[in-house]
Amino acid sequence: MANRIFKSSYVLQKAAAPRSISYSIRRQSIIASKLVFTQYGEPRNVLRKESEELNGVNDKQVLLKMLAAPINPADMNTIQGTYAVKPKLPAVGGNEGVGEIVSVGNNVKNFAVGDRAVPLVNALGTWRSHLIVSEENILKVPKELGLVEAATITVNPTTAFRMLKDFVNLKENDVVIQNGANSTCGQYAIQLCKAWGIKSVNIVRNRQTINDLKLYLKELGADHVLTEEELRQTDLFRSKKLPKPKLALNCVGGKSATELMRQLETGGVIVTYGGMSREPVTVATSALIFKDIRIVGYWMTRWSNENAKSPARFNMYDELIDLMRNGKLRAPVFEFVRFDNFKNALENTLTAKGMAGKKYILQFE
Amino acid sequence: MANRIFKSSYVLQKAAAPRSISYSIRRQSIIASKLVFTQYGEPRNVLRKESEELNGVNDKQVLLKMLAAPINPADMNTIQGTYAVKPKLPAVGGNEGVGEIVSVGNNVKNFAVGDRAVPLVNALGTWRSHLIVSEENILKVPKELGLVEAATITVNPTTAFRMLKDFVNLKENDVVIQNGANSTCGQYAIQLCKAWGIKSVNIVRNRQTINDLKLYLKELGADHVLTEEELRQTDLFRSKKLPKPKLALNCVGGKSATELMRQLETGGVIVTYGGMSREPVTVATSALIFKDIRIVGYWMTRWSNENAKSPARFNMYDELIDLMRNGKLRAPVFEFVRFDNFKNALENTLTAKGMAGKKYILQFE
Repeated sequence: MANRIFKSSYVLQKAAAPRSISYSIRRQSIIASKLVFTQYGEPRNVLRKESEELNGVNDKQVLLKMLAAPINPADMNTIQGTYAVKPKLPAVGGNEGVGEIVSVGNNVKNFAVGDRAVPLVNALGTWRSHLIVSEENILKVPKELGLVEAATITVNPTTAFRMLKDFVNLKENDVVIQNGANSTCGQYAIQLCKAWGIKSVNIVRNRQTINDLKLYLKELGADHVLTEEELRQTDLFRSKKLPKPKLALNCVGGKSATELMRQLETGGVIVTYGGMSREPVTVATSALIFKDIRIVGYWMTRWSNENAKSPARFNMYDELIDLMRNGKLRAPVFEFVRFDNFKNALENTLTAKGMAGKKYILQFE
Repeated sequence: MANRIFKSSYVLQKAAAPRSISYSIRRQSIIASKLVFTQYGEPRNVLRKESEELNGVNDKQVLLKMLAAPINPADMNTIQGTYAVKPKLPAVGGNEGVGEIVSVGNNVKNFAVGDRAVPLVNALGTWRSHLIVSEENILKVPKELGLVEAATITVNPTTAFRMLKDFVNLKENDVVIQNGANSTCGQYAIQLCKAWGIKSVNIVRNRQTINDLKLYLKELGADHVLTEEELRQTDLFRSKKLPKPKLALNCVGGKSATELMRQLETGGVIVTYGGMSREPVTVATSALIFKDIRIVGYWMTRWSNENAKSPARFNMYDELIDLMRNGKLRAPVFEFVRFDNFKNALENTLTAKGMAGKKYILQFE
């Protein structure tokens, strides 16, 4: 079952591969469309498709014809006005995506018409047919990269990458434990661990299709997949089959986070990047003092702002793109959605069910 | 009131200053006494005073005639068997103290009869009249250092020192907030902040004698002293009278810790070194992700084990001793107790009341 969904997604991706149209609008105008919200609220209520006349690019800008842009949960929260980033209104939805360059300014150095690029700046608004952006704010991605991998590279794989790199110095065969392992970020963490020789122990909620989910995550590279209940009774660490985890990734909170901490090695770090249970993270005084457990959070937006021009950022993208080209890092289950059907996709994202949160990817023609 | 207690303690200290008796037992035996426990349990029930014949020191050892040793809460927990350190039984109580060297081995290089020294090794058992210890495991302290300052230098001032140094790079006029500010460690933190030009905001529980306590802590160098209730309503930080704290020290847990975190600057660190409320530390997911609050613990015993021979450790003691000699770091309120009255002191430590936990210091002659 897992397999079937996964494969069908890939078929979809191929079917939807964009036509490569090169045209220049440097000195002509085009009518673009975009999803705008003028007030915070439920996305399906407040988002409107609007037209906009674009009159060419300035010296250092490029015009991106957007090919694909995902709907991420944080995009929904941004429109609801409940996210930490509150763009000035009116604003365009969407925070990542990939486009093809159809026009370049006279002084653009590093990009040419036909290149593919992803915006590197937060909250530009990617749910639009065309985006004018300065060349310093985009990253070139190879055309042979999967369209979905490219459209979704700046949020989830980067989050997994940095959480695995920046808090604990992990060596081969060290162990990482994570809850919400079937989340988009969790799936990237599984694959990065596999690529780097790190053992991953992956916790998911029990469900009717648990065996399919376990199979799916193991195919991605998970070493162990346990339900929350199985984790409480496991002897994986007690029996020393595995060393205790040095790092825990938490996107659930509450009891699930407590259980991760209980398994951590002395001096271990738990990194929180989500709170799906809506429960806080609670830690016993003794775990802090005597087990030296460290509790931190991670927010990709902050890291990107603080490292906008740092080599670490571009090295990370190089490595992610290499892994994707070599088939070691695949996008999660997804479904393409035509621009005009955006309301259905928003609705489905909010009521997401199923094995592993399916990602809806907007296409603009 | 605060002042009176403080001064009377100093009078006590002077009255109890030890006679300086130099005698050598290198080749003779003496009868020492010590407080031994052979099983874990309530200290007043399981501790027995026992005699022991000491037959001189070996080449690299010294014989310390103990002058003073405090009763710390962790000593009580160790005897109760509820502490993270569980010494092999039978064991001698006590974990720090100061002694005078009355005999040195033939190959002892750095100590002479008459020197004062404190043991640097954990769980040696300091509640005894005489202690034989290797010279590499003691630190020389100047004779002009207050006896109580010397006897209590290895646990509380060091904890405050490291927590202020090791987690955040504090600059002059940066702000530290702490709860349980009247704890022994809290009082040292106040004085170290004052000595280093750091502003301290000190939270204590409300009580009948709150004004005396505030006065006492301000005399020690506290910039601000607030009750838990006053903290919830303060506009100190909102009004920008003070920058937000970069560091919080927590020995309470529960709601009190939550309130400290609420005041922290983005990227701030809360260091837990105690849990007097017996409530865990709870943190909202959003504080971890978007405010980048980091939650860590500190345990002096671990640091000392990991840094047993490090220059950082000896530099710290040099600085603490200098501050003590210059009157910038005073011992908390204390009371000397004759060795034979140890049960009263244990009882009083367990039922500690009053303004700022009074420290009971055992003396051995």
